[in-house]
Parts: sequence; structure tokens; C-alpha cells
Amino acid sequence: MADKLIIFDTTLRDGEQSPGASMTKDEKLRIARQLERLKVDVIEAGFAASSNGDFEAVQTIANAIKDSTICSLSRANDRDIARAAEALKGANSARIHTFIATSPLHMEKKLRMTPEQVLEQAKQSVRFARNLVGDIEFSPEDGYRSDVDFLCRVLETVIAEGATTINVPDTVGYAIPELYGNFIKTLRERIPNSDKAIWSVHCHNDLGMAVANSLAGVKIGGARQVECTINGLGERAGNCSLEEVVMAVKTRRDYFNLDLGIDTQHIVAASRMVSQTTGFVVQPNKAVVGANAFAHASGIHQDGVLKARDTYEIMRAEDVGWSANKIVLGKLSGRNAFKQRLQELGVQLDSETEINAAFARFKELADRKSEIFDEDILALVSDESVTSEKEQYGFVSLSQHSETGERPQARIVFTVEGKEVQGESEGNGPVDASLKAIESHVKSGAEMVLYSVNAISGSTESQGEVTVRLQSNGRVVNGVGADPDIVVASAKAYLSALNKLHSKADRVAAQG
Amino acid sequence: MADKLIIFDTTLRDGEQSPGASMTKDEKLRIARQLERLKVDVIEAGFAASSNGDFEAVQTIANAIKDSTICSLSRANDRDIARAAEALKGANSARIHTFIATSPLHMEKKLRMTPEQVLEQAKQSVRFARNLVGDIEFSPEDGYRSDVDFLCRVLETVIAEGATTINVPDTVGYAIPELYGNFIKTLRERIPNSDKAIWSVHCHNDLGMAVANSLAGVKIGGARQVECTINGLGERAGNCSLEEVVMAVKTRRDYFNLDLGIDTQHIVAASRMVSQTTGFVVQPNKAVVGANAFAHASGIHQDGVLKARDTYEIMRAEDVGWSANKIVLGKLSGRNAFKQRLQELGVQLDSETEINAAFARFKELADRKSEIFDEDILALVSDESVTSEKEQYGFVSLSQHSETGERPQARIVFTVEGKEVQGESEGNGPVDASLKAIESHVKSGAEMVLYSVNAISGSTESQGEVTVRLQSNGRVVNGVGADPDIVVASAKAYLSALNKLHSKADRVAAQG
Repeated sequence: MADKLIIFDTTLRDGEQSPGASMTKDEKLRIARQLERLKVDVIEAGFAASSNGDFEAVQTIANAIKDSTICSLSRANDRDIARAAEALKGANSARIHTFIATSPLHMEKKLRMTPEQVLEQAKQSVRFARNLVGDIEFSPEDGYRSDVDFLCRVLETVIAEGATTINVPDTVGYAIPELYGNFIKTLRERIPNSDKAIWSVHCHNDLGMAVANSLAGVKIGGARQVECTINGLGERAGNCSLEEVVMAVKTRRDYFNLDLGIDTQHIVAASRMVSQTTGFVVQPNKAVVGANAFAHASGIHQDGVLKARDTYEIMRAEDVGWSANKIVLGKLSGRNAFKQRLQELGVQLDSETEINAAFARFKELADRKSEIFDEDILALVSDESVTSEKEQYGFVSLSQHSETGERPQARIVFTVEGKEVQGESEGNGPVDASLKAIESHVKSGAEMVLYSVNAISGSTESQGEVTVRLQSNGRVVNGVGADPDIVVASAKAYLSALNKLHSKADRVAAQG
Repeated sequence: MADKLIIFDTTLRDGEQSPGASMTKDEKLRIARQLERLKVDVIEAGFAASSNGDFEAVQTIANAIKDSTICSLSRANDRDIARAAEALKGANSARIHTFIATSPLHMEKKLRMTPEQVLEQAKQSVRFARNLVGDIEFSPEDGYRSDVDFLCRVLETVIAEGATTINVPDTVGYAIPELYGNFIKTLRERIPNSDKAIWSVHCHNDLGMAVANSLAGVKIGGARQVECTINGLGERAGNCSLEEVVMAVKTRRDYFNLDLGIDTQHIVAASRMVSQTTGFVVQPNKAVVGANAFAHASGIHQDGVLKARDTYEIMRAEDVGWSANKIVLGKLSGRNAFKQRLQELGVQLDSETEINAAFARFKELADRKSEIFDEDILALVSDESVTSEKEQYGFVSLSQHSETGERPQARIVFTVEGKEVQGESEGNGPVDASLKAIESHVKSGAEMVLYSVNAISGSTESQGEVTVRLQSNGRVVNGVGADPDIVVASAKAYLSALNKLHSKADRVAAQG
């Protein structure tokens, strides 16, 4: 029988740490549910001690998800570990993932600790964690750039203390497949009790090799867990991408000879959900989940593909959940059909009130748009106002006009804590005028660092989905808004970003 | 002395083959000039025999570029090869790249030829090409899935006939670094005259490993040429990305010990130019050229980075051409300052008329926008109407209005072959109404398969750059338009796409 490769998804932790990718608790829960449908083995739900918001997100996910192990990151100290254990109390299967840096550079510059202090702290932390939870993962941050003798001492120690998974991060994305694979192999050979733990790889993509490095860690090094994120989301160039690593192991089973628990048909839906939630676009030429990744999914039928699909394709688009856009619902669809479609899409709304609110938005949309696609439905429920979190600002109505030769103008009505206010402004364009009209009241002073629009199902007849990224006092948030009218979608996205700026507390930076 | 690694860029050939990435001759020339500034060793400029348009593009680039070798792809037949040689006549240094499939699947299903026929055709073609040009590259298409004994016979034969570079494509992106590296090694060891040619790698990214596979071909296999594209542009999941492979070899010189001719400071400008020209966005978490690729370039200053940049970064953002957005020009800047900035950006306009037209657009923009960034200038000159190609359709003016509760309306004036026409329409949103107003006259019947907007320099005060992808009779084109008013930018993009549909002839599909 082939070994199993454990898929550890950290979209909600390392992915979310990417500037601009922060998510609300409800967004995280929705993604966690999709990860459960994907049959991800371990979901790293957050870093409980980093903020109250993260604590609540981990707790909510631990209570809701039944089939995947739920993990919280934690620095190597008793307070963090106790918080993680507390947040994970409701989980069917809980893991604490504790870390401390072991590279000379990180110990000296970031921790300002000696190697002996680091070793002692790692040991005490795993000992403490082991009394709270049975499943303990330990990561030596920047492990790949650490002194191998020192690293062997640290890892042997934490295994002896009861760490059940040992993860070796290439924190800065410096590795090469051959070298990284052999690094893991060396550690496993030199550490006497290495067989007492499962070995794990965690690679970053700064040189474009996160997937290949992870797989070399598996093939050459003997690792049996891969840490990855949907769409390769993550700081800088991101993390190893889940969809690529999974499809490589499946497509090249002849080489890897490993079993996977993943239900690959949910990959594309997961990719879209993460992209829509964070506003991080997936480029068309992204492997597996990019719009062009499969020749026949791009709408182009080339000669070679027509003659025999195997000529140019090594995977089947259907296997990862690509299908033609389906008209799923329309004006006449009832509440039950809507509710059922939500379930099929992996969206679970927690109360009848929420379902009613979403259904009302659906009917409103159906009045303006004859064909409602899955993407439209996901956008509806991604909209902040459907979620249970209280809003500071809410969209009411908008009027705008632009004409060549004149300054575009906009007038907007929106709510502040439930009370309607009105703003008017000119701008460089109608969108600019609308957002300035909002700012004329709100005066957030936030800097806009990104503005983008994607049509949800291809054409301008569909809804436009706008992402607005605001920066204020070093914090970055994304707001997303959808509407058939791009100017309205932009105003909604801006208000959603302002809501996030209003509600989110600062958090502690974690390891990469 | 270290060996040199030859960088062979195929953005203009394999990259352009990606559905929706087709470029005009002027766009290709502009990118070729940027590749020359990058000091790319070989530029594959196109596939001369595939269409008259491609022939002209190769010819124009061959005449204009002096420092890089210019290459044309060519099927393995005399007619194609003669066309390639003809197009390359003006080049300082010319290469013909001829190919024929050698895998059982491709020979049987695509070519419908026996292996002996393929071997004979490869031999005759290289013999024929060798009389026309001294620098001959041969590729066995789908080489990595070919029978190794047969492949050795083919490659030995073409080297004996005078092929100077042997390229081994992983056409379908099926390879794994270790296996691909050893495959190249085996070929070089088994083929008696292998030392008479330079070996080259050409990898696709279907499993996310194109860069790692290419580098294994170099390190393990001994290849000394890498075929790649800017942003990893290419069919399906794209090709090996130039920026990643170059920065990996530079950053890990300790491992590769190879010299490169590339001037890396021009990488980001090249990436932006290709992205703006094709409308293929670069995702934020793309290595090297993504907006988030460098922590400090994303505007976020994290604790660790502040303490010591090496803690989290293995490359310097400046080395690949990242710099903060600079206000380079404003309302008062003169024609000379504008012309000089164009030169610094690597944009060369071919006549004083073109420079005057671009400058006029610049002044018009400066009236509406106080700060003009490099991105704005690149967008100005990317705009079709500045280029010398004749337009079928041209934008004149637009008026639109939307108000909550009413159907959005638009009225547009545009030219058809120089004559002004007017269209009016309602739509789901103001953009939809504007494009429907155009269609009410043009009646192209084209299907819109993509619509996206990016703010050129972050905020909605800047210009919006809209990409519209249209599909008609199996052909896909992108139109790009920029304006501070998103609705106007959308109309411009739509007209630009219609112009491309109008002007571009079908072309023959080439190898991947």
C-alpha cells in the first residue's frame, strides 16, 4: 500500500498574512468549509494569540469543521500555546503548531537570543503544549538556512518532548529542489528519533520553485506532509500552491506513488472563493486554476486538441472542477432552489435571517439580470452585508453622470451606523467622483493602493466585482463589492473596505 | 571561468500563441526593443510562415534589433524554412528554429506519419536550413514523451546535418525536475556527436514546475540555453518564466555557477509592458514581478524586515527594476522631457508624427490628472491609436448616466473609417450600456469572454486600464484602453478589440 501524503492548508494563516489578504471571521469560516469539502487533512485556521479576531476565527472554525484537523499557529511561549489550546477546545481533532526561529540571522536580528536559549525555549514549549493537546507540530523558522548541527539538536529535543510533526520551512524561498530534498533527508538520517515524527515541508515561492521544492522534500527527503495554500496565496511571492502540488502528485503517481485524500473536483471553486474573498486575482496562465490552464476551457479549440486531447493535456479539466458556466437560477427560482444551490456551492449561512437576506439580494439581482451564474451567487454571499457582522457603513443609492469635456459628478446616499447621509463630489472619473463623495463625509484619510474590477462571468452584462485595497496607519484591508453597475460596485467595495478598517484590530506578525 | 547560460525569450512566439495574447506588429516591436535592453541573447520573434502578419513582425524586428540574435520558428519543411530565412534577411544575427514532433502520440495523431518519415523529414529540413543560415536550432516537439532510442537517432542525425542548438521541449508540462534533468543527461551521454551542439530546455508550467524543470535540465543535464517568456506567458499554464529563471541563477550562483548576460534592472518594465500589451494580469503573489513579491515594495514595513532586510528577502527589489512610483512629468513638462522619458522607458516611436500624437495625448491627460506616472506614459503609447496601424474604429466622445432604480444609459460618438457615427443604448450598467451603444452600429456579434479593469497607479484618481477580450469565429483578441473615466476606457478598449478583430488574419498553430 502506498503512503498517504498529508495536505496541510494554511490559506487562512500564512495566506491571510499576505498584505491586503486579511479576511473577516465569516469569510474564513466559508473558506474553511470549502477546504473541508476538498478533504484537506489539516486546516491551519489562524494564529489564535495574535489578536482577538484571530482567536475567534480559530474558535469558530474549530467548532464548525468536523472532518479536518484544525490547527492554530503559536509562538513558542506558554501564553500563546494556552490561547491556541483554548481556541481549539471545540475541535474534533486539534493541532497546535508552535515555532521559533533557528537560523543565525533570525536568532540574532529578530529574536536577539542565543542558540542555547532558543533550544531551551523550543523544548519547554513543546513540553507545555503536549499537556494540552496530543497533536503537536514544531517548525524551526528559517529552518533551511539554519546550521544543520544545531537544527538536529533542536529537532531531536522537540521530538523527544512529544512533537508529532516536524515541519522544515524554507521561510525566504531560497531553496533548490535537489538541495532541499537532500536537506530533509540528512535531517531524517542524522536525528536518532526522526522516525517518531511525520516530516513536513513548507516552501515559499520567491524563486518560482515552491512546488518543486516541496515535492523534492517528499520524494528525496521522505516528508509526508506538504504545507500549502489555495492559489499559492501568501506573503511576497506566496506559498506552495495546493492545487499544483496535489495535481502533480496525482498526475505523476508513477513517480511519487503516494495516496491523497483530496477531492480534486472542488479545487476550482476553492480557488474562486479565495480569489473573490481576498481580491487577489489569479493570472490566466496560472497552472490548474488559471482561466487558460486548460486549452478547451479557454473556449479555443485547436487542431491538435480536437484530434486527441492527450496531445496537449495531461490532466482533465473536469477533474479539478472546471465546467462551462451554467445558468443555475433565474427570476422565477424559489427560496428552496436558492438554498439548495448554496449548499451545492459549499456555502453555509448560519441562520434563516441570513438566508432570507441573501435571497432578497438574489431576487433583486434577478430583476436586473436574466441569467444568474454560480459566480453571481458566490458574490452575493461574499458581500459583507449578508454576513452577520455589524456594519458601520452601508450603501443606499447612487447617481452619477459623465460626459466628454465635463468633470464627472456623483451623488451617493449611504448609512453611517444606520443613519442615512448624502455626499456629492466631482472626480477624474465617475468612480473617483463616487468614492470622493463617500470620503467627503467619512474623512478616513485612507490611501487607496489597489483598485481592480473583474466581470464575474466574463462579459459586461454580468456583475462587475470590484476590489478596493485601502491602507491606513500601516494596516491594509480589501473591500469587495459586486453589482451590474461598476460605479455602484466600486462604492460598495469602498464602503466594505471602510467597514474592515473600522472593525479590525492590529495583529502580531507571524512566521512565514 | 563559468559557462554562460543563454537566455532565449519566446514571449513573441510561444507567449503570443496563448489565447487572447495576440499582438500587433508595433506591439511586438516595442517588446522586442525592451528584450534587447534586457540583453536577452536570442529573441524568437515569431513563426514567419504562419501568416503574413507574423512574417512582417519577424522581418520588422530582424531589421530593427541589433544586439540580440533574432529567431523565427518554422515547421520542418522547405517552404516554411525559406519563409523564415526570407523574414530574417535583415538581421545582424539570425537563427532558424525548426521543429517536428517525435512522440508516438503526436506522430500518430497529429502528424499521421511513421517514425522513419519523421526522421527523414527532420534530416532534410536541417540540411535545407543549413544552406540558408548558419545558426540552426532543432526541436523534437513533445520530446520529453518520446521514445529515447528514437529520439537519440533523430538528434544525432540533425546534429550531423548541422543543427547548432538542440532543444528538448516538455510540450505538455509533464516533467519532474529530477526526471527531466536526467533525461537531458542521458541524451547527451548517448548521442555520440552531442558535444557539437548547445543543449536547450523548453518547459511548460502545467504542474507548476517549469522553472525547476528548466534548471534541472541545466544543472543535471548540462543544458546551456533556457527558453522562457516574460511573466511566464504562454498557452495553458504558460512557459518557464524568464524573470524567475534568471533571478534563481543569479541568487543561487553558489549552486549553478553560470554567467548571464541579462541586465536584470529592466525586468519589471518588461513585465509591465507585456502585461499591459496582452491584458494578461500578473497576480500579486507572482515571484519577482508580482506587486507583493518584495515585502517593502508592497508598502508594508514589517517588524522583521525593518530589523534586517535579509531576514525575509533574498533578492533586492532594485535589482529587478522595482522602484517607488515616481512622479515623472506634469502639466508643464515639455515635448523634450516627454521624449526623453519615453527613451528611458525603452519606448521608441518611429516617426515625429507618432511622437507628436503621443505628446498631444500626454498634454490632454495632464489637463485632467496632475501627476503623471511612468505607468501612465506606457499606457499612453500602448494605446492603439498612437501606433501607425490604420484604425477601423476610433473613439470620439461619450456621455452616460446611471441612477439607482433606473436603467443606465449611454450615448457614444465614434468613427468608422474616419466617419463619425453615434449610438445610444441602455444596459445593466453604464459600461454595458456604452458597449451596447457601440454594438448597435457595429454589429460584430463578437462574444465578450473577459472584462477587467486595473487602476494604472493604484487609486481611482489614476487612469483605469481596461482589458476587453472578444471572441469571434474561434479567434480571440484583446483590446486595451486607458482613461481616468472607466466607462470611457471601456469604450476605447472595446473599439481597440474590434480593430484587432477587423485587421488580424488567422494563423497556423505552432508547437508548444
